[in-house]
Amino acid sequence: MFEARNGVLHIEDVDFREIVRATGTPVYVTSRMLLEENIQTYRTHFGWARLLYAVKANNNLALMRIFARAGFGADVFSAGELYLALLAGFDRNYVLFNGNSKSDEEIEFGVRTGVRFSVDSIDELYTISEIASSLGRTVRIAFRVNPDISPETHPKIATGLRTSKFGIPSEEIFEAYRLALELPAVEPVGVHCHIGSQITDTSPFVEELEKMFEIAKRLEEMGVSLEFLDMGGGFGIDYEGDGRAEVGRFASALRPIYERGVAELKSRPELWIEPGRSLVANTTVLITKVNSVKRAYKNFVAVDAGFNLLLRPAMYDAYHRVAVANKFGLEGEEVYTVVGPICESGDVLAKDRKLPRVEKGDYIVVFDAGAYGFAMSSQYNGRPRCAEVLVDGSSFRVIREKEGFGDLISKQVIPEDLL
Amino acid sequence: MFEARNGVLHIEDVDFREIVRATGTPVYVTSRMLLEENIQTYRTHFGWARLLYAVKANNNLALMRIFARAGFGADVFSAGELYLALLAGFDRNYVLFNGNSKSDEEIEFGVRTGVRFSVDSIDELYTISEIASSLGRTVRIAFRVNPDISPETHPKIATGLRTSKFGIPSEEIFEAYRLALELPAVEPVGVHCHIGSQITDTSPFVEELEKMFEIAKRLEEMGVSLEFLDMGGGFGIDYEGDGRAEVGRFASALRPIYERGVAELKSRPELWIEPGRSLVANTTVLITKVNSVKRAYKNFVAVDAGFNLLLRPAMYDAYHRVAVANKFGLEGEEVYTVVGPICESGDVLAKDRKLPRVEKGDYIVVFDAGAYGFAMSSQYNGRPRCAEVLVDGSSFRVIREKEGFGDLISKQVIPEDLL
Repeated sequence: MFEARNGVLHIEDVDFREIVRATGTPVYVTSRMLLEENIQTYRTHFGWARLLYAVKANNNLALMRIFARAGFGADVFSAGELYLALLAGFDRNYVLFNGNSKSDEEIEFGVRTGVRFSVDSIDELYTISEIASSLGRTVRIAFRVNPDISPETHPKIATGLRTSKFGIPSEEIFEAYRLALELPAVEPVGVHCHIGSQITDTSPFVEELEKMFEIAKRLEEMGVSLEFLDMGGGFGIDYEGDGRAEVGRFASALRPIYERGVAELKSRPELWIEPGRSLVANTTVLITKVNSVKRAYKNFVAVDAGFNLLLRPAMYDAYHRVAVANKFGLEGEEVYTVVGPICESGDVLAKDRKLPRVEKGDYIVVFDAGAYGFAMSSQYNGRPRCAEVLVDGSSFRVIREKEGFGDLISKQVIPEDLL
Repeated sequence: MFEARNGVLHIEDVDFREIVRATGTPVYVTSRMLLEENIQTYRTHFGWARLLYAVKANNNLALMRIFARAGFGADVFSAGELYLALLAGFDRNYVLFNGNSKSDEEIEFGVRTGVRFSVDSIDELYTISEIASSLGRTVRIAFRVNPDISPETHPKIATGLRTSKFGIPSEEIFEAYRLALELPAVEPVGVHCHIGSQITDTSPFVEELEKMFEIAKRLEEMGVSLEFLDMGGGFGIDYEGDGRAEVGRFASALRPIYERGVAELKSRPELWIEPGRSLVANTTVLITKVNSVKRAYKNFVAVDAGFNLLLRPAMYDAYHRVAVANKFGLEGEEVYTVVGPICESGDVLAKDRKLPRVEKGDYIVVFDAGAYGFAMSSQYNGRPRCAEVLVDGSSFRVIREKEGFGDLISKQVIPEDLL
């Protein structure tokens, strides 16, 4: 969907320069066709599981509506994400309210909407039970299990480590369910787990699902009737290659574990998965303009977007492919380091990349920016945030208007004595 | 200014619970008295230099107005910061428009406002000259020099390394000034430098200023008439102690270098410095509420603010002192790790701190949060940003209203076919 035509980047059938004329730069541009393609890929390989879109990756309403209409549920991590998800039209029966630190207000909001909860601690269980009781509601819950999947074998896994802040240790999980069975207004119907993000190896997921079935078996013996096992997300994409996740490989590894697992259970809980990055990352590019080229210790290309708009390289040392949008597909000639306008040395979008000769006024496109891109953006250094655009064939629509200076001060109040 | 009265945190004479009743949590709270104290400290020790407030640290207009009224200039890093600085009332003769990647639109805006520019590259010099010429203006400029201060001796220094994206290498700087002397509509009147941030050792600053005077001497020989030498900011504070910078120590180290330096020059350029962190960090606390306490591998205290509101611990592994605001001054009993509500393992505000026994409903206060706190905040995980409050004696005022769900969607547009 990102093609060179006469050396110019096209998103589907739209010349990127048309978009830039309409919105200026920087701008996030999403290909609807790629989004639909990713949805189809998941349907093909995971038709036997239920898909919950992980809203945290990208909470643009237009994109979320496409997922909602395709029958996805949603994984939300705050009352704000829950609000956005319901507005986007996700079926509330398949919205799971996750989160390790929900406030009473968030819990009340969640209870009123009727979604299911992933409960992260015993403290939270009591709070949900009290709030739901007082509202005369019953909440269907899962506990988030910390599976303690060994860091020695899978060093990149973060959220499933024993030391992480998430979930209830697996040795204590049965006591939690026992308590839930006794408490009013909560009904344990699922098990939730999540071992991390951007994992490309299948083996930690296999280990995770096996552990979840072990837990499920014991829960059935305790009298818990299970509707779902939610193993979270984390399917990694190929940032250095085509930006895709090998969804088929994950599905093939997990399906036999699932079939064997449910065969040993009395109930037949659904498998829920929560893809985020692998659904949206490769659909979206960030288009930036070159403000200057400096030949110093390195060849620095200074563009108009930095970690204010795309935090991943600065925060996680993440790799994103880049190219020159107006010299797209041309041979690389020189090695450049692409830097943003933020006042920190770490504000580097791409290090030492061979690109066609770059000059002031060129455009640098950053690929695979659809996940944890705009979602993590800030107004740091007094920079209003940029627009988002959705391309559909030969037309495009602004799906988020760009901010202006007014958005830097709209919430500010100056006391009288300082006016 | 942060005192325990009957075990309850007071900011100046205000009980923190009064603020929380008005704004909810989380909330950033600034002590005006501490701000004025920091201003006085700088005046006392750096009365012989000109002070430019580094807006990037905290661009709240109320705070900036206090600096502007105290006679500070401003260091701005984008058109947005320039807009805010002028709105705050800083004297435009002492506003320096910095930045390694200014767009043509930003440059035009800067030229029209009549502020001085720090020029980061030859590309930018040409652009400024062209834009200023076309507007019939003359712009007073400094070049940002990359001083190449050796990383072996000062490993924490980032922005002054030869490899950093900032500035023009010192061996090329004279050619840059020569070019500026020839070009229309630009008038070189200063030298700008900045070696990094949060530096507590004085020796790199001494080395920097000595290098700047060497450059100044050669520039005078070239016929440049210098009005100022701006050595940037970077004065570190004591995050593990009282949150203060040893301003007197920096001043004592620099003053003899300055006096000796100007004695050897024909002109008497002012010394400009750009403090940010050391003026605002310790004035402000972030107050958060405890949503749950979990005894797992560690004792986790889950609060309602995470790296969405205070990025520094997650991004820089930065240390911030914390305490229990409603058990303030009480003896520590247990070791806790304070975590935020964000869906990442790295969302930890404070690791392994001895605190009084913490329970759900308690309040955790994070100190020294006034610099690079709200300024770097985001709406990540669908979390509206929080309020800011200014305390003055026994009264307080909201200086930034908190956001709501509406602020997550106010710029979003859903195309017709997705409505």
